[in-house]
Amino acid sequence: MQFPSKLIENAVLEMAKLPGIGKKTALRLVLNILKRDSKETESLAEALVKVRNEIRYCDECHNISDEPVCTICSSSKRETGIICVVEDAPDVLAIENTGQYLGRYHVLGGVIAPIEGIGPGELNIDSLIRRIEKSEGEIREVILALSPTMEGDTTGFYVTKKLKEYDIKVSVIARGVPIGGELEYTDEVTLGRSILGRRSYETSF
Amino acid sequence: MQFPSKLIENAVLEMAKLPGIGKKTALRLVLNILKRDSKETESLAEALVKVRNEIRYCDECHNISDEPVCTICSSSKRETGIICVVEDAPDVLAIENTGQYLGRYHVLGGVIAPIEGIGPGELNIDSLIRRIEKSEGEIREVILALSPTMEGDTTGFYVTKKLKEYDIKVSVIARGVPIGGELEYTDEVTLGRSILGRRSYETSF
Repeated sequence: MQFPSKLIENAVLEMAKLPGIGKKTALRLVLNILKRDSKETESLAEALVKVRNEIRYCDECHNISDEPVCTICSSSKRETGIICVVEDAPDVLAIENTGQYLGRYHVLGGVIAPIEGIGPGELNIDSLIRRIEKSEGEIREVILALSPTMEGDTTGFYVTKKLKEYDIKVSVIARGVPIGGELEYTDEVTLGRSILGRRSYETSF
Repeated sequence: MQFPSKLIENAVLEMAKLPGIGKKTALRLVLNILKRDSKETESLAEALVKVRNEIRYCDECHNISDEPVCTICSSSKRETGIICVVEDAPDVLAIENTGQYLGRYHVLGGVIAPIEGIGPGELNIDSLIRRIEKSEGEIREVILALSPTMEGDTTGFYVTKKLKEYDIKVSVIARGVPIGGELEYTDEVTLGRSILGRRSYETSF
């Protein structure tokens, strides 16, 4: 692709580094920026630099936060006895948006992936154990909400093993046919799991 | 959508102002920015502000340019006798990428759209006339490469009328069935035009 200007080329190449943004999309965005007020572009640029440089992570759960302790960990309305273990910050957002969970979280910051050189030491697993020890029995359940992939399963297995010596119930989010999904198009592993994990009709709604 | 942090919310809302970027995509981009080196974000921000504040438009053809006169207008390799009239800078890029055109351009900066309050006076039509007068007969053809919409047609009609008093051939880019398009799915107006505008078999390749 040829660019009419070095400034445009530079902006397009920078934009195209973002995930899912190709050069064509980047060009469209940059040309749109040219049409808009320069103040708008300045506030976009400022917001991006600011979020990158000033973002903090909660000392308790490692979720994204503006304060040393995030709004979820510091909220008196959240149940303190349950911790939901997730891989990354977007997972917290996804679960929060369901409105079905009122406990707290623990963000591991990844999953165990030996090929990529990520071992348990790189994840926030020790701090999860410390939280449990510090709570002196208040935390009674840990929900593993990890992706149903090999890495997710490995990580779940490792965390469960670590939690064995504490009097804590470890549960895993349900895996099965997605709501609205068609049975005939569900892959056999999921369908098999949904049969193994069947629940009594009365408790399934 | 709930955000875990004001900084993130702000960055997401700013990003979502760009065309075709919804809040979900914006969030994905912002979360990716958090994972990347802060220098990368700074150079992205700088490139955007710079392109917005330092971009210039060619004095001759009004295309985007780093210099007072753009690379196309100042190139000695481009044919000086033909001007291709387009609506906006992306159209120049699109035609340049075909590699089929070696003349110069004239960017109108829009099309006549009375409903949006854009009359001929808002467009770079007078400067096109001045270019033609200044060339003292060197410019012998003007190609209208405007979108085949009502506004594009109106603008083409207006420009053609303005050019009547000069000894200039005015042509319009071919309209017809797109290459690779299927005949049965082509709309009737395009198909009708492609029959009216048929060419002798020998000259059509």
